[in-house]
Amino acid sequence: MEKIKPVKIKKEMKVSELVGGMKEAGFGARKIGKASEIMKKMFSDEECKVFLGVAGAMVPAGMKEIIIDMIKEGKINVFVTTGANLTHDLIEALGESHYHCDHWDDKEFHDKGFDRMYNVFMKNSVYEKIEKFFEKNWEKFQDSKNITGFLKKIGELLPEGNNSILRTCYEKKIPIFCPGISDCGIGLMIWGRLASGKSLSIDAFDDMKEIIDIAWSSKKNGVIYVTGGVPKNFIQQSLQFSKGADYGIQITTDRPETGNSSGAPLEEGISWGKMKKDVEYIDIFCDATIALPLLLASVKD
Amino acid sequence: MEKIKPVKIKKEMKVSELVGGMKEAGFGARKIGKASEIMKKMFSDEECKVFLGVAGAMVPAGMKEIIIDMIKEGKINVFVTTGANLTHDLIEALGESHYHCDHWDDKEFHDKGFDRMYNVFMKNSVYEKIEKFFEKNWEKFQDSKNITGFLKKIGELLPEGNNSILRTCYEKKIPIFCPGISDCGIGLMIWGRLASGKSLSIDAFDDMKEIIDIAWSSKKNGVIYVTGGVPKNFIQQSLQFSKGADYGIQITTDRPETGNSSGAPLEEGISWGKMKKDVEYIDIFCDATIALPLLLASVKD
Amino acid sequence: MEKIKPVKIKKEMKVSELVGGMKEAGFGARKIGKASEIMKKMFSDEECKVFLGVAGAMVPAGMKEIIIDMIKEGKINVFVTTGANLTHDLIEALGESHYHCDHWDDKEFHDKGFDRMYNVFMKNSVYEKIEKFFEKNWEKFQDSKNITGFLKKIGELLPEGNNSILRTCYEKKIPIFCPGISDCGIGLMIWGRLASGKSLSIDAFDDMKEIIDIAWSSKKNGVIYVTGGVPKNFIQQSLQFSKGADYGIQITTDRPETGNSSGAPLEEGISWGKMKKDVEYIDIFCDATIALPLLLASVKD
Amino acid sequence: MEKIKPVKIKKEMKVSELVGGMKEAGFGARKIGKASEIMKKMFSDEECKVFLGVAGAMVPAGMKEIIIDMIKEGKINVFVTTGANLTHDLIEALGESHYHCDHWDDKEFHDKGFDRMYNVFMKNSVYEKIEKFFEKNWEKFQDSKNITGFLKKIGELLPEGNNSILRTCYEKKIPIFCPGISDCGIGLMIWGRLASGKSLSIDAFDDMKEIIDIAWSSKKNGVIYVTGGVPKNFIQQSLQFSKGADYGIQITTDRPETGNSSGAPLEEGISWGKMKKDVEYIDIFCDATIALPLLLASVKD
Repeated sequence: MEKIKPVKIKKEMKVSELVGGMKEAGFGARKIGKASEIMKKMFSDEECKVFLGVAGAMVPAGMKEIIIDMIKEGKINVFVTTGANLTHDLIEALGESHYHCDHWDDKEFHDKGFDRMYNVFMKNSVYEKIEKFFEKNWEKFQDSKNITGFLKKIGELLPEGNNSILRTCYEKKIPIFCPGISDCGIGLMIWGRLASGKSLSIDAFDDMKEIIDIAWSSKKNGVIYVTGGVPKNFIQQSLQFSKGADYGIQITTDRPETGNSSGAPLEEGISWGKMKKDVEYIDIFCDATIALPLLLASVKD
Repeated sequence: MEKIKPVKIKKEMKVSELVGGMKEAGFGARKIGKASEIMKKMFSDEECKVFLGVAGAMVPAGMKEIIIDMIKEGKINVFVTTGANLTHDLIEALGESHYHCDHWDDKEFHDKGFDRMYNVFMKNSVYEKIEKFFEKNWEKFQDSKNITGFLKKIGELLPEGNNSILRTCYEKKIPIFCPGISDCGIGLMIWGRLASGKSLSIDAFDDMKEIIDIAWSSKKNGVIYVTGGVPKNFIQQSLQFSKGADYGIQITTDRPETGNSSGAPLEEGISWGKMKKDVEYIDIFCDATIALPLLLASVKD
Repeated sequence: MEKIKPVKIKKEMKVSELVGGMKEAGFGARKIGKASEIMKKMFSDEECKVFLGVAGAMVPAGMKEIIIDMIKEGKINVFVTTGANLTHDLIEALGESHYHCDHWDDKEFHDKGFDRMYNVFMKNSVYEKIEKFFEKNWEKFQDSKNITGFLKKIGELLPEGNNSILRTCYEKKIPIFCPGISDCGIGLMIWGRLASGKSLSIDAFDDMKEIIDIAWSSKKNGVIYVTGGVPKNFIQQSLQFSKGADYGIQITTDRPETGNSSGAPLEEGISWGKMKKDVEYIDIFCDATIALPLLLASVKD
Repeated sequence: MEKIKPVKIKKEMKVSELVGGMKEAGFGARKIGKASEIMKKMFSDEECKVFLGVAGAMVPAGMKEIIIDMIKEGKINVFVTTGANLTHDLIEALGESHYHCDHWDDKEFHDKGFDRMYNVFMKNSVYEKIEKFFEKNWEKFQDSKNITGFLKKIGELLPEGNNSILRTCYEKKIPIFCPGISDCGIGLMIWGRLASGKSLSIDAFDDMKEIIDIAWSSKKNGVIYVTGGVPKNFIQQSLQFSKGADYGIQITTDRPETGNSSGAPLEEGISWGKMKKDVEYIDIFCDATIALPLLLASVKD
């Protein structure tokens, strides 16, 4: 029987101290503390490949640097995300920005050409930059045969040191998977070119070989699922028929009761073989823009 | 100023009466009532193409018939869903089943070969059936060039009258879009064959032309988003640069505050041009397995 | 192993048929179906006392008739609610109304004297009616010694047949408990009179004897918790040291992870003795204004 | 147009730096940053009385010290909470503890006499300590006439320097309000004595005068609502007919759509006059055991 110890706030407190204290408390605080511990183990276990799956508009919300730093510091080995995040990353890579909106009027925003994501927006004109990027570089994508290769090529084409996930993954040789690539601004711009008669041949199924190979060949696998969605599912199925994850952290505000993957607790994955039976994992019910910075700051070394 | 009228329960009450009464009440009841009205208009507007986007494991949860009936009755023109739903549909099409589990132990389920989705499970052995299906029919997929074509071919290969979404869409000539097709059991089985040296060439971007063409060429567009995810996003972007939806119903339990697409209210789409400015739309916060049957039963004619 | 059967929508379908079909499906649909069954058993078990606890603004939302009918039909034996619901019930009892607002501007509403509860509002002027009611009847409350007695007196003072929860409970001799009575418009009006030098003596603890006696003396107890809050907690503690509930239905959208009573699943109550060990209970994750009408219509006889 | 700046994690980062950085990001991170700023202003505004309302089992979850420190440091002027929190505070004041349970079996817990609140439990035997406390001190409560006086008396009876909310409020002369006092372990123990023939006379309405006087007489009012419930509602109504809050922070995971007070955004209070029109307020969607420590650590000086 381990006693709850109340969280004690100190002056000039470091995040690591706070999160350490939260581990001694209950409810969600406990889980943040536990997740920080599991994250430390996962990141320092040299036998472990870490799969990071990110859904939700994390790039517009200012979580880009956290992901870039994880990649630069060698903390993750595989990155799976949505087309939206990569589109927003490319938008910033090409010099455009996202903006705060603590209040909004969607009709007015439409007239101004502002595209809103909760309390963040971008100018609709950013699409022109993406369009020009693909127009200019179209020929260079002709050799790309699958989605991960296509995304690697985008990273290659961005200038050295460009502060983006796409470029950093390219420089650090971290594969990016994005099964739903057609479902985003990048997809729209590709469609625009295809519609105008240009050709491109990117295979829809080919990427699975690479991610399953990584899952299969590693000694251990760790998973971090942010907001669920296709990224979570894609990582899970790469593990399902290989060997299941050895460490797991999930951050989601979706609910188990509705039966969709985004809300399914990690434990459910045990039945499928996506998570191993007696390993450490934790589900955190929290907005990822709060939990991610808190966790990463608590394990930063 | 329109007064709230309390819901009055009657003996042998019809669903349409109940939902009609709920419209006069407040909170979520009101919204169910409003959604029923919008659904009726959307379905009876002959100028309107209806796009149904379904994420979440609706097929394992027993929502298949509702979708099949909508297709058979000509209520929807475009169906966008996740790979998971199509995999579960194919599983049932091939004679396998999903089962109830009101209680569970995931470790025990793993040993028994039961794959759990909240209070529903299937036997892991179902994958063999899918594997054999693709093994047997492999050559017939060589002509499929894009994802919607690949899915149409599956439908074509199923026996006439087979009680599945895949077959019904084939028979009724309703296109199925599934941008994240590699992210599911079907994807896994395809990977298995590719890994064993077989070839297949399905393009990742090509489908966009077809869905955007439909959105563009119709006089009006109506959207029904169940659980958000990639299906919602894919429909939204087909509308974004054409003309925005004229009717909208969204059923989701995800929250706006976390900024992800699944929780974004329809109104947010106005800023992007995905929803028109002064049209009728409603967001319903409810488990889709409750709201969908209720709504469809209320408009059944 | 019990197979999932897809929900089949029929023309002119009755609510009872729909809910019966939902029981054969998964996720929340299954739970609605199960809850309907448990409700039927609870209502028809002659040895069972039914405790209904209602938090959330159910009266402004048009759920008043459902509660009144349950009382009239002898389906419930004890009613526990918030001061807010009783205030809104009294407001309607005195001839005032609640109104729809599908859109709102809170600053504008303030200027207009409209008090908003999500998509429902009332005129702020309703408080005058309550004030006059207590002013006129002040002397008659001097004999009320506890909260349940005070509420019974309100019911007694309303005209015969008045379509309110307060009056119906009085006529049907169903006790109303409301531990947080000072926390509402009724409380405010009482304060107004106390502040002007009038006296009243209502005991804060005395009601517990009556509710615990009922729990203790019954052969079986059934509980229905709507939205959790103080009503749930008050019923639970009346059961905790007597014998635990024999049937349980909970409707809440609150989450277990945050550790508060409103989100705690019924199962948690087993540890405390608030729920018996091997009895039938179900937690429904749904807006109560959707689930309550659906359930009551499904069991109406 | 203010640009989003990605959160940058640093080594040995202080909480105040992290939260400062979160303010430049989007979604929930932005709101945590904004709330920290509002909290600083509220705490340093000498004209402002701060009303802290706490629902949810914050004491069992280890949030006691945070509340005690706020009281000791003069940051709050009025404390409103649930009977449950005060009961758990008294339990710890009398030397008992709460414990971690990362896994549980409620039937087993029942047999062991463990009362569970999500991932926290206490021994059921703690009730004996409370019982003895009231048995021993019964006569001393005969002078208590209202709930706040009754709670002050408990604080007075605890030893000097006792590390509890009840004692600290007594020492610092901070009134505790608890409209639903009968709804908790303290209530149960009082009932036990009343049932055995003892008498006590605590008025249910009398406290309103004191809290409304404080709201009325202050130059400005600030509110912090944790988890909503009766504490939020009680503070709100003390402000409704006086002058509305000048600063507001709400932490809740409840939803607006279901219409209950716990999920109602602060903005709704503007229509009622509970919140002033053009003041600073923020709603945070987060487990309070995560958000509270983060916020308080960010403003600690």
